[in-house]
Amino acid sequence: MKIGKSTVPRTAICTSDEHTIVVRGQDLCQELIGHLSFTDYFFLLLTGLRPDAACSTVLDATLVAIAEHGLVPSVQASRMTFAAAPDALQGAVAAGILGCGSVILGASETAGRLFMDVAARMDDGATLQQAATAVITELKAARAAIPGYGHPLHKERDPRVDRLLEVAAQAGADLRYVRIAQALEEAIPGILGKELRMNVSAAIPAVLLGVGFPVASLRGVPILARTAGLIAHLAEEAGTPSGFALSYQATRELQYEGTVPAGFGKAP
Amino acid sequence: MKIGKSTVPRTAICTSDEHTIVVRGQDLCQELIGHLSFTDYFFLLLTGLRPDAACSTVLDATLVAIAEHGLVPSVQASRMTFAAAPDALQGAVAAGILGCGSVILGASETAGRLFMDVAARMDDGATLQQAATAVITELKAARAAIPGYGHPLHKERDPRVDRLLEVAAQAGADLRYVRIAQALEEAIPGILGKELRMNVSAAIPAVLLGVGFPVASLRGVPILARTAGLIAHLAEEAGTPSGFALSYQATRELQYEGTVPAGFGKAP
Amino acid sequence: MKIGKSTVPRTAICTSDEHTIVVRGQDLCQELIGHLSFTDYFFLLLTGLRPDAACSTVLDATLVAIAEHGLVPSVQASRMTFAAAPDALQGAVAAGILGCGSVILGASETAGRLFMDVAARMDDGATLQQAATAVITELKAARAAIPGYGHPLHKERDPRVDRLLEVAAQAGADLRYVRIAQALEEAIPGILGKELRMNVSAAIPAVLLGVGFPVASLRGVPILARTAGLIAHLAEEAGTPSGFALSYQATRELQYEGTVPAGFGKAP
Amino acid sequence: MKIGKSTVPRTAICTSDEHTIVVRGQDLCQELIGHLSFTDYFFLLLTGLRPDAACSTVLDATLVAIAEHGLVPSVQASRMTFAAAPDALQGAVAAGILGCGSVILGASETAGRLFMDVAARMDDGATLQQAATAVITELKAARAAIPGYGHPLHKERDPRVDRLLEVAAQAGADLRYVRIAQALEEAIPGILGKELRMNVSAAIPAVLLGVGFPVASLRGVPILARTAGLIAHLAEEAGTPSGFALSYQATRELQYEGTVPAGFGKAP
Repeated sequence: MKIGKSTVPRTAICTSDEHTIVVRGQDLCQELIGHLSFTDYFFLLLTGLRPDAACSTVLDATLVAIAEHGLVPSVQASRMTFAAAPDALQGAVAAGILGCGSVILGASETAGRLFMDVAARMDDGATLQQAATAVITELKAARAAIPGYGHPLHKERDPRVDRLLEVAAQAGADLRYVRIAQALEEAIPGILGKELRMNVSAAIPAVLLGVGFPVASLRGVPILARTAGLIAHLAEEAGTPSGFALSYQATRELQYEGTVPAGFGKAP
Repeated sequence: MKIGKSTVPRTAICTSDEHTIVVRGQDLCQELIGHLSFTDYFFLLLTGLRPDAACSTVLDATLVAIAEHGLVPSVQASRMTFAAAPDALQGAVAAGILGCGSVILGASETAGRLFMDVAARMDDGATLQQAATAVITELKAARAAIPGYGHPLHKERDPRVDRLLEVAAQAGADLRYVRIAQALEEAIPGILGKELRMNVSAAIPAVLLGVGFPVASLRGVPILARTAGLIAHLAEEAGTPSGFALSYQATRELQYEGTVPAGFGKAP
Repeated sequence: MKIGKSTVPRTAICTSDEHTIVVRGQDLCQELIGHLSFTDYFFLLLTGLRPDAACSTVLDATLVAIAEHGLVPSVQASRMTFAAAPDALQGAVAAGILGCGSVILGASETAGRLFMDVAARMDDGATLQQAATAVITELKAARAAIPGYGHPLHKERDPRVDRLLEVAAQAGADLRYVRIAQALEEAIPGILGKELRMNVSAAIPAVLLGVGFPVASLRGVPILARTAGLIAHLAEEAGTPSGFALSYQATRELQYEGTVPAGFGKAP
Repeated sequence: MKIGKSTVPRTAICTSDEHTIVVRGQDLCQELIGHLSFTDYFFLLLTGLRPDAACSTVLDATLVAIAEHGLVPSVQASRMTFAAAPDALQGAVAAGILGCGSVILGASETAGRLFMDVAARMDDGATLQQAATAVITELKAARAAIPGYGHPLHKERDPRVDRLLEVAAQAGADLRYVRIAQALEEAIPGILGKELRMNVSAAIPAVLLGVGFPVASLRGVPILARTAGLIAHLAEEAGTPSGFALSYQATRELQYEGTVPAGFGKAP
């Protein structure tokens, strides 16, 4: 069935013949394997370009920052899935990745788009403070959350934020989007009436957009990073099962709010 | 509901409080972000240990080697899924990962277990040649495939194999499992009556087992690597859609082998 | 980690003790198994109510209508996944379900919400024709597609539409939303300058909303229905493999649009 | 890339032209929609045959029996995934289905194959008791679990078992596999030294194999059934969120077994 206009698939990422695999125009075996890190290869795959030193450092830092944060919901979902289906490691990883959505982890991309919006307003003549005030005011009017600000555990300060900003500065990255992210943080209390500190999902686009990482692929950073964390958790699950223990604990205080037939819960 | 014996979940990977995230005993922000690469962090997450230089080089090389090989079935599945559900990047990545199974990509782990079997027989006194001959003979008797040997496209030689072996040698890695992999390749023709050359799924465990990568997590290497490739393909799909074109082409020669009602296919 | 306000999980769907499983207030074994169809049970699970005869008939009809339409993209993705990972049936089903997104199959819900919008405008005093004209005009102004109208194959008329409407009428269902769906179809040419005929994704909410199916769960209908189709395709795939043949055909005309190293494609 | 021998995809399930959709040789709109239930259509999709009355009754009963059992691990995984990614209902359903694996729910198929093994031994001349004793003895020797026997909650008797057997008997189904399942239950104590009562995963193949359901698709029954349950849970989750509350509860007694840096856990 023909869906859409195009009937011929196209790609610029990879081609191969019997002897050579070409990725982004380069010979995989002669020019890439052993010559660049997996992180740099990820950037090359995405953009067709080799990252410069600042980009390489910052991208590594963001992947390390977001790969692991303990038994968060997506890790629990993954470990429960593995406990139920231990033959299919790929299925348990997939279950974990499916939890990288709009509420959790997806905020990196939304925050990045917000920063691009501020930058566009500055290109149109607004000051940083004006642009920051305008976008927060608009989000408040729309009763929308501020993506990348506030954290359920790290209320005072997500410790990954300062470290990522520090790494970006030391690497010589363009800090334009870092300043935008900070301006938004400063604008929030006056408009929303409460502090919401930048969390790691704001810090990631703040440092990555300055080194040329494409905004449209920002959600790929937590997805790739968490895949590494999930594989580690599933290796641990294989040796020290916790998936079913998690599900047991999860329902210990479960409240059933429906009705029951007469006699339910009494010994027969 | 209590399933299994344990009711208390346990982990040794990560803990945190409001100010500090601890991963494998180290302070994520002070000791890890900006201090080690994502590849090294993957090894630390998995094993609790920092890789030595040879391990780091070899693990990077394997991840680069297996991340991308064009529009293979799992990439097609992922791009078709994204075309149908473009709002859920994580879903399209998950669909691609679900194709990292026993037939495709999963052979890394199976081949690694085969190499461990040969090594165990050598520890018990067999020569390398005796052990290699024995395991191939047993697989033939069981009518089983030899995991990691033979390739549908790269019949003469998968070019990634020689390069990975070269990188491992140059990095000073322990080459014990490389020699086992080669001995199996040499043993095959005499027993099976045909050549089956080592493919990338044999080369990956051959080099990784020598640098301390755990055999039980070998399937994690193609899963993590392919996630990077999938994210790149989905970024391309967002800009240059091919998912529906792939599905259109796929069925151009489809043969329907069932029956049809009278009059089907004629204009009404 | 505490995310959100609630820390106590609640459910009204099911509870159980050692002797009795209670679903929606009824004893699963005494009152449900053998007493109602799977379709009626699906409605009970979703809403807590037993469907009346019209609802039961219409819901069965929609599930039958949408379960199967040949080797569509999500079925291809599922069969490719099964070919690569035949040990994990659940993974191949999951890969197929992941293609039930906003572009494909998800239109049932979007169309249903559109019909509710028209109904609300009528409750506020508009005539059916006024309300239909208004929502199509607004969608055109927003350059948005009309969800549930137009089909790549069935251009003249999706044959499932008339049949679903006929079944609903014969079953004595409330046809209010059918009339809304038809009014939108009639309003389209005058506003968009072309005919777009109602497709199955409009017919499904048109008949289901009239029998009390909740609009918020409309996307569940194609998901449940397609699961049945996917299981059938995977049973066929296990006996008559087509997954890799599909992927082979899909790339026969693939155009590589990147660069290649000097000498690529020539025999070495 | 050509993988495997076949390059031409084939199917006998469905074909269509602009006016007609043909499923298993029948006109979907004229012969199927409104003429058979979703359950019967599932059987037709799978086998190409319309079920007889006994088959229809028994298949409905098994789907109703296994669709829902409260907040089991796969439902928890699904609800956590939805809480994190509420825009992608299909992703949350997929995450839940991924937990229908070899340990949970997959036992239906394994038990069904066990019953076929007993039946084959009887065809070769063994009595029912001899065949049952032989397979249990062999499983014990292999230190394997008996698939479909024993339950973590319903220790005395899974109430679904008796009801399914009763429905099958009342429907006039062939009870050969029911007798096999019962013979295995009777053989267990003498060989294993403890009682293991038949659970729902044994009852499902026991009744389904007698009405012509294909053993190779037995795992499809819990997958399809649970999809209905998952959709209901996700509808409830959208209105009464419990996903994050489940993950909060799950880790309340979590034990971290790794080391921590000096000073961790003390206010800074």
